[in-house]
Amino acid sequence: MPRVSVTRRVHFSAAHRLYRPGWSEEKNREVFGECANPNWHGHNYELDVTVEGELDGETGYVLDLKRLRDVVHASVVRDVDHRNLNLDVDWMSENPTTENLVVAIWERIRPRLPEGVELKRLVLRETPRNYVEYEGG
Amino acid sequence: MPRVSVTRRVHFSAAHRLYRPGWSEEKNREVFGECANPNWHGHNYELDVTVEGELDGETGYVLDLKRLRDVVHASVVRDVDHRNLNLDVDWMSENPTTENLVVAIWERIRPRLPEGVELKRLVLRETPRNYVEYEGG
Amino acid sequence: MPRVSVTRRVHFSAAHRLYRPGWSEEKNREVFGECANPNWHGHNYELDVTVEGELDGETGYVLDLKRLRDVVHASVVRDVDHRNLNLDVDWMSENPTTENLVVAIWERIRPRLPEGVELKRLVLRETPRNYVEYEGG
Amino acid sequence: MPRVSVTRRVHFSAAHRLYRPGWSEEKNREVFGECANPNWHGHNYELDVTVEGELDGETGYVLDLKRLRDVVHASVVRDVDHRNLNLDVDWMSENPTTENLVVAIWERIRPRLPEGVELKRLVLRETPRNYVEYEGG
Amino acid sequence: MPRVSVTRRVHFSAAHRLYRPGWSEEKNREVFGECANPNWHGHNYELDVTVEGELDGETGYVLDLKRLRDVVHASVVRDVDHRNLNLDVDWMSENPTTENLVVAIWERIRPRLPEGVELKRLVLRETPRNYVEYEGG
Amino acid sequence: MPRVSVTRRVHFSAAHRLYRPGWSEEKNREVFGECANPNWHGHNYELDVTVEGELDGETGYVLDLKRLRDVVHASVVRDVDHRNLNLDVDWMSENPTTENLVVAIWERIRPRLPEGVELKRLVLRETPRNYVEYEGG
Repeated sequence: MPRVSVTRRVHFSAAHRLYRPGWSEEKNREVFGECANPNWHGHNYELDVTVEGELDGETGYVLDLKRLRDVVHASVVRDVDHRNLNLDVDWMSENPTTENLVVAIWERIRPRLPEGVELKRLVLRETPRNYVEYEGG
Repeated sequence: MPRVSVTRRVHFSAAHRLYRPGWSEEKNREVFGECANPNWHGHNYELDVTVEGELDGETGYVLDLKRLRDVVHASVVRDVDHRNLNLDVDWMSENPTTENLVVAIWERIRPRLPEGVELKRLVLRETPRNYVEYEGG
Repeated sequence: MPRVSVTRRVHFSAAHRLYRPGWSEEKNREVFGECANPNWHGHNYELDVTVEGELDGETGYVLDLKRLRDVVHASVVRDVDHRNLNLDVDWMSENPTTENLVVAIWERIRPRLPEGVELKRLVLRETPRNYVEYEGG
Repeated sequence: MPRVSVTRRVHFSAAHRLYRPGWSEEKNREVFGECANPNWHGHNYELDVTVEGELDGETGYVLDLKRLRDVVHASVVRDVDHRNLNLDVDWMSENPTTENLVVAIWERIRPRLPEGVELKRLVLRETPRNYVEYEGG
Repeated sequence: MPRVSVTRRVHFSAAHRLYRPGWSEEKNREVFGECANPNWHGHNYELDVTVEGELDGETGYVLDLKRLRDVVHASVVRDVDHRNLNLDVDWMSENPTTENLVVAIWERIRPRLPEGVELKRLVLRETPRNYVEYEGG
Repeated sequence: MPRVSVTRRVHFSAAHRLYRPGWSEEKNREVFGECANPNWHGHNYELDVTVEGELDGETGYVLDLKRLRDVVHASVVRDVDHRNLNLDVDWMSENPTTENLVVAIWERIRPRLPEGVELKRLVLRETPRNYVEYEGG
């Protein structure tokens, strides 16, 4: 059977600041600029979750996108939407750059996917002009 | 010469239902949910057709995008736009999931491309939140 | 207090055909073109519901957008999403052009809004290139 | 000369929480739901600033959009981008709902416009599905 | 019958420069900045043409959007698409600012509309961040 | 450390014509159609620049996107924005098709990237329906 990729897009809104605890405020401000603002700022994040697998000859699905949506909501969106990425998310211990966030989301979703489909790619948009991609490499 | 990918985006609007003939209405409703509605529903589909080839040193084209558009219209859009994917499209005999549809479109476009360019990727969006990708694998 | 307009955007996917019962198939085809296809076609509709009212000095809301969303879901989206606009929607007896649909949606939402806010504008998009607006006039 | 409206779109990213100081945390949570999270959340805001005026027969401009952009940056974007709307913005003393924010932005921009153009409309988008409009009424 | 607005969106790609013939190159550069580049620059323009009228009780249309599209193509798009707005368009004698262009387009479309519908609004986007609106005032 | 791709999107507006100097005007018109208009036309180009590298364990960045933006502005955007691609850009000697342009942009950006990150992909959109991709192959 052909292998096809299917993608579900989800959104969440969160606060964060870029900040490395071992550094002074001055050093953080120097490296992270306005993103280091101690009073936080925030974004509407857009996340595209892409899984790949063989077409199921009976259903014509790779997997039911509702099932993918449920995995992504239960393991990611519920924890980060309307939250503070530095303070409220126990699986996000690193400085919440978009790069660190996409890697942490990968680790949340991959073990929860049904058998027979593999996580292929995450695209995480932080602003209309900046986004990151991760393929597990 | 460098190899570049060029993409043409097209749109079509179609009705469909997700339905497996060998199953009861109850079973279809259980597996496909509201998508099994016997009176149909529909979508604005957005299709990105990507071909790859060497730059032609004379024209600076991989291929004239008008030519790609004409192939896609004649072999796909004309048959599915303002049509019912279950009833009106003779090359679409499978349950018209987005996955089955993208594979069928691949088989329509690939043999009709000019020599020297290869079909690299199709992206088919069914809603703003759901899309599939196929690379012929 | 200042008067502000607030908008909630919702989506639904539906099948329809443009068809006037008193006319022959030929006449329907002549007037409505491909939109008259007897086997239906469909769209992803995007609806912007705009209400206007005074700011509430206590909450800073005109109204809670979750409440507006619930009204729109209960009175419109639940009835039309994954449905056939000609066959499945009891409050849609006219030929389901975008114009007739937006007027029928207006009549559904207006009487269900909380006191103190008025329905100001509906924008209903049928395709990326075509949309209608209604202000109750 | 004809009167034309011209619009400049700007973006900013900010943290906030919806919170009324005179209320208990429970009451705030009850009214504002997840938006009351004490650790904040945030958004990418998109603001369309529309001014109207007569065409200048010499330049063919209503006003130079670079000038409008500079007014909006100096009076709004510089103060709110990468900031906390509850803590960092001295002209934002109300609960930072989108409604209160758009009214406060109106008061910032209107007195700073050049003579001969009037502020006609602000559209402020908080998420892809929610936005507010204000015309000074 | 209810009055509804219907909109058709069209696109065109054109070159232009902002330039007032009676002024020196220095003065043009001072007022119009990079837009005065003597070797031209260009844009993908997006034009929303909105007409308003009573619903026709027989068809459920205000007017057939194909008819509106044909008027807009014949009177505007055919003349400006892949053209130079300063050199190639005989009905565009003014400095081709977006403001002057939208007024000239209004004069092209209005007299060509069918009876019973009125031109209500044009929105002309020059870049993702800049657009103008004209209502004939 | 994980390898992540990060993308910065930039925009520029330029005029061009498709034209091969060794050919007659008739031949150019025959091959390039309206794109050969001697008086030029133009576009709003959208360019996504994607680089890949290892996460830096200290900052959580692959690279600071402001640094990537500065490289792209200094080596590409400054030279092409509000310019004529045939006349004004000394590093663009080929016929300015989107394919030739994306290859030339690749050669501009690649040698200017900081050590440890590699240029992975460019996506260059010329219109909402046409875009090209280049991965240096």
